[in-house]
Amino acid sequence: MKPNSKLTLIGFVAVVLAFIATVALAQDQLSSWNGGPTKQAIVDFVARVTKEGSPDFVPVPERIATFDNDGTLWAEQPMYFQFFFALDRVKALAPQHPEWKTKEPFASLLKGNVKGVLKGGERAMLEIVMATHAGMTTEEFEKIVKDWVASAKHPKTKRPYTEMVYQPMLELLAYLRANGFKTFIVSGGGVEFMRPWTEKVYGISPEQVIGSSVKTKFEMCDDKPVLVRLPEINFIDDKAGKPVGIHQHIGRRPIAAFGNSDGDLQMLQWTTAGAGARLALIVHHTDADREWAYDRKSSFGRLDKALDEAKAKGWTVVDMKNDWKVVFPFEGE
Amino acid sequence: MKPNSKLTLIGFVAVVLAFIATVALAQDQLSSWNGGPTKQAIVDFVARVTKEGSPDFVPVPERIATFDNDGTLWAEQPMYFQFFFALDRVKALAPQHPEWKTKEPFASLLKGNVKGVLKGGERAMLEIVMATHAGMTTEEFEKIVKDWVASAKHPKTKRPYTEMVYQPMLELLAYLRANGFKTFIVSGGGVEFMRPWTEKVYGISPEQVIGSSVKTKFEMCDDKPVLVRLPEINFIDDKAGKPVGIHQHIGRRPIAAFGNSDGDLQMLQWTTAGAGARLALIVHHTDADREWAYDRKSSFGRLDKALDEAKAKGWTVVDMKNDWKVVFPFEGE
Repeated sequence: MKPNSKLTLIGFVAVVLAFIATVALAQDQLSSWNGGPTKQAIVDFVARVTKEGSPDFVPVPERIATFDNDGTLWAEQPMYFQFFFALDRVKALAPQHPEWKTKEPFASLLKGNVKGVLKGGERAMLEIVMATHAGMTTEEFEKIVKDWVASAKHPKTKRPYTEMVYQPMLELLAYLRANGFKTFIVSGGGVEFMRPWTEKVYGISPEQVIGSSVKTKFEMCDDKPVLVRLPEINFIDDKAGKPVGIHQHIGRRPIAAFGNSDGDLQMLQWTTAGAGARLALIVHHTDADREWAYDRKSSFGRLDKALDEAKAKGWTVVDMKNDWKVVFPFEGE
Repeated sequence: MKPNSKLTLIGFVAVVLAFIATVALAQDQLSSWNGGPTKQAIVDFVARVTKEGSPDFVPVPERIATFDNDGTLWAEQPMYFQFFFALDRVKALAPQHPEWKTKEPFASLLKGNVKGVLKGGERAMLEIVMATHAGMTTEEFEKIVKDWVASAKHPKTKRPYTEMVYQPMLELLAYLRANGFKTFIVSGGGVEFMRPWTEKVYGISPEQVIGSSVKTKFEMCDDKPVLVRLPEINFIDDKAGKPVGIHQHIGRRPIAAFGNSDGDLQMLQWTTAGAGARLALIVHHTDADREWAYDRKSSFGRLDKALDEAKAKGWTVVDMKNDWKVVFPFEGE
């Protein structure tokens, strides 16, 4: 045997062994999902696209799956977690901004009147985001996010926000990756608000996170290059922005997409419009006991048009109450 | 032995075998590089960051390497290949644009006066790019690029442009990937001009290509969602734009970067400013016989400030004439 053939053989044996291990482990990977049509739709789709020789077979590099974050991978009630971050930042920065005492939306916020802030609508939120998410280097912002994630607690559960992720979705991410999928986050949330923790929490590396962003500027600061975050929107990765963000970042169409609100509608349309087998899945929040129950009337994560389209198009809708054995990983504690 | 331990053991054996195969194959992976300080700098760097327990060890997910394209992975003379594409598109579209006969820069171009077009500077090139790169869906543009790449020939070598890639750099890409690196393109060229062929030619998938872009818009067209390319610049991924593009897209700092011109200077600065071992490499075009020889005075791929900084900072500079046994893959034919 020539040295090269020997290496090829060793490589082949390694691949076969890895495959056996993967298949055996995969069978149990969706253990927090109750049996039924929802779980079956997921397993059937994965079987179709991964079976060599099947008409729906998809080569590994094209197995792209995109996940919304707020309300799909982690909770989003009583409001988007990034808003809690922004509000905490306003409080932390208030001593440096005496003018905020009389300037809306900061004045309401500092008096604890969050509803007053939300009345200011998108414009008020944008002002708060710009005041708290810009004006520092990218490295400084990363540290601010990491510190907040390590210390902040959700008002209802008193848990760190990064524990309020959905156990069945964590299993789904791992299951897809075990089947050769590349998993991406495609969120309306700030990309740099997610990247510092998505690898640890979801197993999704920074380069596979797509989100909204502010513009940044390259500068030399004391002979050291830095990227400064500017108070100017670069991209809003929501609604019709999601397919745009996907195309900009990934450059090919996903074959599976996962969302929970009208903000995900265009991503699901874009994904399902491709040829071959496609999976479009919507997480429907139906569990007021273990999580929250909301859809058509919610201020955060409104699910209305996308729910109608899911029914019309036969997309998979997760009934959280009935399809999930467990919602949060900490429930068993 | 419990089933899980057995699976873990099989997985472990698979990893060990894969590792042995990788190491043995890697030794011969830079065979088009002459021995000497340049090749040694590359091999030493890779050894330092991949050796477990070494102070310079870098975990696999953080082994990010970014490559410029024009002049670094493929040639860029007598002008950027994307300009040839744009000029060919102007000719193809001319029948639909009778006004171009008298309108600059199109009039000069259609008369074959390329120098006249270049005199119009950036503004003329931008007009040509917008006229030829926008106004269609992303799928239509992808097909246009694929058709052109399959048929167009370089004026000097009469080879397809995708054959005018540097053999030593192809080996370097593969060598880095075999050592756990993720390889990205970070080019001033159009991202959608590169993505249709980078996977096949460089082994770099679309989601690892970063480049300049036009804005796109999500629309429903006969009930089918499309992304329409608009005649408006979205992002210029050149000079100070490169670190910005890297941060937007990858979200972490590369530990190795490869360029050939002043357009890559900020990417190299950004890469080397991180802590730990770093590799900054510049391809210096010194071979007028096999390729082209140019640097400080060239209109395309000018290498001036970055050459000075490379000397001052001790970056690795490839002397193409002396460091490369082979330039193009077709030389042996």
